[in-house]
Amino acid sequence: MGDTIVAIATAQAPAAIGVVRLSGKEALAIALSFWQGAKPHPRTATLGMLLDGQTPLDQALITYFPAPHSYTGEDVVEISCHGSPYILRRVVEICLERGARLARPGEFSLRAYLHRKLSLDQAEAIADLIQARSAAAHRLALSQFRGAYYQKVRALREKLIEFLALMELEMDFSEEDVELASRSQLLLLLEALDGEVTALLKAYRIGQAVREGVPVAIVGRPNAGKSTLLNALLAEERAIVSDTPGTTRDTLEERLYLGGYELRLIDTAGLRENPADAIEAEGIRRARQKLAQAFLILYVFDVSEETPTQAQQHAPLLLGTDFTASILWIANKIDKLSTPIPSTDGVIFISAAQGTGMDALEKAIVESLAQQGASSDILLSHARHYESFIKAQTAVKGALQLLREGGGSELIVEELRAAQRAIGEITGEITPDEILGHIFSKFCIGK
Amino acid sequence: MGDTIVAIATAQAPAAIGVVRLSGKEALAIALSFWQGAKPHPRTATLGMLLDGQTPLDQALITYFPAPHSYTGEDVVEISCHGSPYILRRVVEICLERGARLARPGEFSLRAYLHRKLSLDQAEAIADLIQARSAAAHRLALSQFRGAYYQKVRALREKLIEFLALMELEMDFSEEDVELASRSQLLLLLEALDGEVTALLKAYRIGQAVREGVPVAIVGRPNAGKSTLLNALLAEERAIVSDTPGTTRDTLEERLYLGGYELRLIDTAGLRENPADAIEAEGIRRARQKLAQAFLILYVFDVSEETPTQAQQHAPLLLGTDFTASILWIANKIDKLSTPIPSTDGVIFISAAQGTGMDALEKAIVESLAQQGASSDILLSHARHYESFIKAQTAVKGALQLLREGGGSELIVEELRAAQRAIGEITGEITPDEILGHIFSKFCIGK
Repeated sequence: MGDTIVAIATAQAPAAIGVVRLSGKEALAIALSFWQGAKPHPRTATLGMLLDGQTPLDQALITYFPAPHSYTGEDVVEISCHGSPYILRRVVEICLERGARLARPGEFSLRAYLHRKLSLDQAEAIADLIQARSAAAHRLALSQFRGAYYQKVRALREKLIEFLALMELEMDFSEEDVELASRSQLLLLLEALDGEVTALLKAYRIGQAVREGVPVAIVGRPNAGKSTLLNALLAEERAIVSDTPGTTRDTLEERLYLGGYELRLIDTAGLRENPADAIEAEGIRRARQKLAQAFLILYVFDVSEETPTQAQQHAPLLLGTDFTASILWIANKIDKLSTPIPSTDGVIFISAAQGTGMDALEKAIVESLAQQGASSDILLSHARHYESFIKAQTAVKGALQLLREGGGSELIVEELRAAQRAIGEITGEITPDEILGHIFSKFCIGK
Repeated sequence: MGDTIVAIATAQAPAAIGVVRLSGKEALAIALSFWQGAKPHPRTATLGMLLDGQTPLDQALITYFPAPHSYTGEDVVEISCHGSPYILRRVVEICLERGARLARPGEFSLRAYLHRKLSLDQAEAIADLIQARSAAAHRLALSQFRGAYYQKVRALREKLIEFLALMELEMDFSEEDVELASRSQLLLLLEALDGEVTALLKAYRIGQAVREGVPVAIVGRPNAGKSTLLNALLAEERAIVSDTPGTTRDTLEERLYLGGYELRLIDTAGLRENPADAIEAEGIRRARQKLAQAFLILYVFDVSEETPTQAQQHAPLLLGTDFTASILWIANKIDKLSTPIPSTDGVIFISAAQGTGMDALEKAIVESLAQQGASSDILLSHARHYESFIKAQTAVKGALQLLREGGGSELIVEELRAAQRAIGEITGEITPDEILGHIFSKFCIGK
């Protein structure tokens, strides 16, 4: 913590601008040691020349952010030079020669956390923010970064700590049998906490899907037009399409951005009861595997072969039971129908080959995700948070049961302590060092 | 020129920081139209929140550089946000919605040139600076950017213009037969100019090589150890090496950074008088082709088979005559010698297989490049400049001849005009629009 760290903060390819960032006590001294130009005033972009020994290296802008009003809370200097990989590398090398140390991944954010500029979940949100590829993933990361995320939980945790203090006090006076903490109020608090935590845990799967791409499986009988649908959604010829049933054997996965979401569209082998050979059987096995991972299933059937009702009746047999995803029913090949059939509730009629009905299908996909909570700003999306909330939930439920059964104060206190510790881990109020190391190592360098 | 342009100025991959740059009259108004935070003072990095409609998009720093003290000479705003491709794209999209136009490649630098913040050769140097991969290429670009490059030529051009004015004046008084411009001084000036231009033209090939990577061909008889040498220089197993003569058929090219230079090392098929088959003959044809393009030739021979003197005697037959590169003589396989042979001037003794003598070889390569002028800061490296200087040289030589032969003033004036125009094209003092368009289209967007 005492030393000064340096890293390239921008992506590393030739570009107009590249930024090197220094943080620590020596940040300004190191930057000025190879600077020809005016000494920068705080927060003022100052033009000058960087020197490599006696020779000029680049014309650059230096901005100095004195502690504590900087990203890390330490003295920070940002050197904005031409975005040449050679220049950026040399700037870092010179800083290292002058006593800086190369920052580890996430070390700037770690320092911001350690100087209380960011809570731990906010620091994690920055890593997410940088990686976000869709509007929904970005919204999730930003709301977490802005701290809205855990404000409720945090408030509940503070009350928990109050109760805990009172109950610990009680125990000091245990011989006198006073009750400082109202058991009925504690019950209410724990029930509220249980409700919050359970809701967040429930939203974990969708949160994770929004962050990493929502898995959407395209399934159905052989030759129902699944690959044609994939191509139509992607608006390109990704999958090989032929009239031969069973053309798709491998599962194909493609990313599609739709309504602000990132979808991982998975094309699968056609499902049927009696596969022709071992290769087809293997394809079907893999398709069912993908089903289990999917968040949404696009069940495609050939409406010139099966009515929607027949398709829905046969589907369970084909799909098996090993999945929890919602299903969108897609009646494909309406172009093959000689007479139009009446619309059926909850079924989307399309011709993937001709592109008919695709707008309605896309709308239905987005609506289905929103219905499942994907449009919420507050979704649990980190495995680490999930684990902590599971711990918190177990403790809260334990405390609730003890309370209801009239259990001893000492046992209740034990559970309350576990619950507040678990919640505290998320925001970083209580976090062992090895967890910190693990969290920040996933950052990119320079952040 | 009247509109406001916008572009992402940093490389586009997830990173800690990304910068969007606006330039033009509306730059500040557009930036503030989706900004929640204090209005930035000139050149002061100001923290606030970018808005996407009503919802927050990202926490960012805005720096405002009012005209004329900015990169382009116009009002410039730099928005420094989290380096998320999603955020950067949205920031640009919002700027476009608010009236900005997407910048064309190099348009920021074009505006800087049009507002006389940069000369044309300086603007070109920025594109080189960004792309520079080696210390030598970087040094070349920076010296051009700093304007040191053409200062001499420019001074000579100004004197040329003075003479031109005097001679044009003379022509107005032609009946009176006055000589305002001293012919002997003009002769001295033109000779000095001829010397400068000729020197610059001579250095064009090495300048280009330094900028784009110096082509170095590794040639020699089959099984002399050329591929082993390539691998040894690269310190990796790039080329397939075997005891079978003629293993290398294609020419392999690899980049190597040595002594601040970028080398394009070219491994070639072994050369011999009587190729075994058509494939080998084709390999030899290609090797000779590469020779013609090379700047430096590493001629490798097996010193356990040929003495250095024999190798140097046979080489012309193998190499042909279609090249101008210097040759480094490399006696390979010294590990196979039972008795050491006396060192020979100008021959480097190595064992590529064992890594012996590689330091001396690397030193010799770097020294050879320096001897050929590669270490100079002022090297012509652009085809455009080369063409202009060729035009200038032709005109200067024409004027010199006329002067010496007592040619008429009108003809001399014509040549002087052509010369000053040609030199003026380089710095952009005289440049047709289509040349401008061509130059700046090679820039990256955002610069």
